[in-house]
Amino acid sequence: MARPILYDYARSSAAYRIRIALNLKGVDYEQRLVNLLEGEQQGDDYRSVNPQGLVPALEIDGQRLTQSLAIISYLDSRFPMPPLLSTSIVDRAHVTGMALAIACDIHPLNNLRVLRYLTGTLGIDEAAKNAWYAHWITDGFAALEALAAPRAGDFLLDNSPSMADVILVPQMYNARRFNVPLDAFPTLVRTDANACAIEAFANAHPDRQSQGA
Amino acid sequence: MARPILYDYARSSAAYRIRIALNLKGVDYEQRLVNLLEGEQQGDDYRSVNPQGLVPALEIDGQRLTQSLAIISYLDSRFPMPPLLSTSIVDRAHVTGMALAIACDIHPLNNLRVLRYLTGTLGIDEAAKNAWYAHWITDGFAALEALAAPRAGDFLLDNSPSMADVILVPQMYNARRFNVPLDAFPTLVRTDANACAIEAFANAHPDRQSQGA
Repeated sequence: MARPILYDYARSSAAYRIRIALNLKGVDYEQRLVNLLEGEQQGDDYRSVNPQGLVPALEIDGQRLTQSLAIISYLDSRFPMPPLLSTSIVDRAHVTGMALAIACDIHPLNNLRVLRYLTGTLGIDEAAKNAWYAHWITDGFAALEALAAPRAGDFLLDNSPSMADVILVPQMYNARRFNVPLDAFPTLVRTDANACAIEAFANAHPDRQSQGA
Repeated sequence: MARPILYDYARSSAAYRIRIALNLKGVDYEQRLVNLLEGEQQGDDYRSVNPQGLVPALEIDGQRLTQSLAIISYLDSRFPMPPLLSTSIVDRAHVTGMALAIACDIHPLNNLRVLRYLTGTLGIDEAAKNAWYAHWITDGFAALEALAAPRAGDFLLDNSPSMADVILVPQMYNARRFNVPLDAFPTLVRTDANACAIEAFANAHPDRQSQGA
């Protein structure tokens, strides 16, 4: 297999998810920097890789894949061990539901392009922008805590990391970066700490990327 | 099997997706109305069903499932025919990627709770709210059109409906309701029309629900 190419940006949480998943699967990959702060994701070069103009994209097996959850699901089929999605359809629905509670209901609202629309087009000030950011994390984490607590162990489902943990860790990083209080979410704090202690998660951290965070 | 119970609201696009999927799979189900305009989704009764306070939720096989894409994936494993997700991992990643391009990058930004935050907390006027709504659809549909066009046939992937079509149809309904121009998206317009001609899609339309739209 040719070495997969990840179109990456250190602080992109969606790219961070893919770095974790590739590391967990033990897949060596090449990183290509797409500088979001310089707008490279909207340039024609990158749009020819991903018409959405969003990172990440992954070139693998002669395909160009987009959307981080679709990529993780592909990687989980392609490299089955360790599994990130259970073979039990009930457990898979639970893990996917927790992942989507972040990927649909928190993360898109706090994306760079959305924050720019708020401060640019809508003229929202910095304090209101930060309140917006914290609001969707706090609201979303409260729901996720309730969803996760009954079946969580060391990780969000039982005692091994799943796709839900892969999605949680970058969102916790964002929450801390914006000083969102996390005391009300003990299950999330505990499972995040356990995940971050694993080398595959730790090596995917924005501060550990050669391009810097 | 006990008849599944769908916690539903006619105009909720996420619930509309599940009505389509259940109809396509030929699964008879009971509808329980959660009146979003009256805030029932945030009440304790409904929070005990879904801690996220969002519709839909589906009670099936003794489980309570949340998150529409996780529910569709469950239904596709539980009732394999007709398939909504390909068995080819490349095609499945493509279909899932198109579905997520709507479910993550358009729909969450235009959700009722987000529009209420914009007009309430942020004091945005009606015109700016409608421009926000149209902006994310237009931006997202442009990307989806480019993603879909190379491999679309009668439907978003080839010639049978997939999970991507199940997600597209409710988003097209929203776009029309807010008068968003669609001329730039011929693949989406064509495949949406083909899907809407199928009884399973037509019967899931908001106007066809007993509770009204």
